[in-house]
Amino acid sequence: MLSKSQFKLIKSLSHKKYRQRQNLFVAEGRKVIQEFLDGGLPLHLLLSVSEAFGPSVSQRITVSEAELQKISFLTTPQTALALFEIPQAVSPPETGLQVVLDQVRDPGNLGTIIRLCDWFGVTNLICSPDTVDCYNPKVVQASMGSLARVQVHYLDLVEFLTRQSRPVFGTFLDGANIYKEALPSEGVLVMGNEANGINPNTEACISRRLTIPQFGAIRETESLNVATATAIALSEFRRR
Amino acid sequence: MLSKSQFKLIKSLSHKKYRQRQNLFVAEGRKVIQEFLDGGLPLHLLLSVSEAFGPSVSQRITVSEAELQKISFLTTPQTALALFEIPQAVSPPETGLQVVLDQVRDPGNLGTIIRLCDWFGVTNLICSPDTVDCYNPKVVQASMGSLARVQVHYLDLVEFLTRQSRPVFGTFLDGANIYKEALPSEGVLVMGNEANGINPNTEACISRRLTIPQFGAIRETESLNVATATAIALSEFRRR
Repeated sequence: MLSKSQFKLIKSLSHKKYRQRQNLFVAEGRKVIQEFLDGGLPLHLLLSVSEAFGPSVSQRITVSEAELQKISFLTTPQTALALFEIPQAVSPPETGLQVVLDQVRDPGNLGTIIRLCDWFGVTNLICSPDTVDCYNPKVVQASMGSLARVQVHYLDLVEFLTRQSRPVFGTFLDGANIYKEALPSEGVLVMGNEANGINPNTEACISRRLTIPQFGAIRETESLNVATATAIALSEFRRR
Repeated sequence: MLSKSQFKLIKSLSHKKYRQRQNLFVAEGRKVIQEFLDGGLPLHLLLSVSEAFGPSVSQRITVSEAELQKISFLTTPQTALALFEIPQAVSPPETGLQVVLDQVRDPGNLGTIIRLCDWFGVTNLICSPDTVDCYNPKVVQASMGSLARVQVHYLDLVEFLTRQSRPVFGTFLDGANIYKEALPSEGVLVMGNEANGINPNTEACISRRLTIPQFGAIRETESLNVATATAIALSEFRRR
């Protein structure tokens, strides 16, 4: 059975402040938990409705489905919940293809982009400090375990981008047609905020402006969601 | 001021049953409402915190921000909410490029896919009857007004697909590399459920199996979100 203090600890981890203080985050569902175990992240606590799942460790508690539902951050109940230690921050390597996010606020978008990076072999994702925290439970869930393999770094973007020798790409409404550009295997791709796009200070660091062309009747009010735009852009970088 | 019966009516429209009974759906935010007005959808009721927005019609009520927040289905408050009449169902044309969704359950995914169809000039989207309802408030919101331009049809997929003379494509883990295939401008692209993919009855109607290749270390546990996979596939169909 779960103690009151464990219950309080888990619930507190919906807030970034407490995740940082405890150095812990929540992962839910067997598939996602297994990905973090496979990735070698230190397990702090495992709650499971069945003893048949997960490593046999001392930090393991068997709970009822009702108990798990009460503690869960998800609307669709899972059969396991785990606390993992947040890995220590390291500096990103400055090679290969990397994605940079400028003020992405929606947890679902960040999770989806982490999953996309994993699919397209982009192992480092750089985020502005005001991008949503990647250990937010909704981000962890939307990333479907890919967070175990993609390293997310929170950095001052202007400082990071100005020291790059690789070309810095960004998507805009007035850039060059992405389908026709030569795209290198080494580079940095900047994607912007859901409502406001890339902010002017970051934009000043971008050397190559790209556009995903619109088809059918052109309307200026239209735009692509940041996660779907990232999907199309990464697909273009990798298909060459 | 909003009457009690209007309040009850609006709240009831979160349920498909009441949307069908009343033949009405909710749109929130000035941008989204304006798109439906531009699309010529009959307006039933408009709530706005400012008289400066929207047509001057008899079905207009000026409300306070607090009132609007109380009635809203969104977590981020907007300054306007409207009820529109649901357009009459018509048969989809059987030409051009169309997307078919098999049991897509997540409102955010459907809304994002409607927005993608709009971007890529796909004006008809065919959904299995058990796909989430496109007039669900969360779908309307995620579609960002694109629902005003993309016609969504709920049909028996096997019946629809078997009578097509156009090629029927689907994405699978074992298909032909989508980057290398000849893709026609006339065709049907089937995308499947978030957890289970395309169901076997629908799969039997697919003549051409496609795969979006995975890069980096290949792991069988990985997959793409249905909306991001649709983004990449539509981009491939249109870039040729």
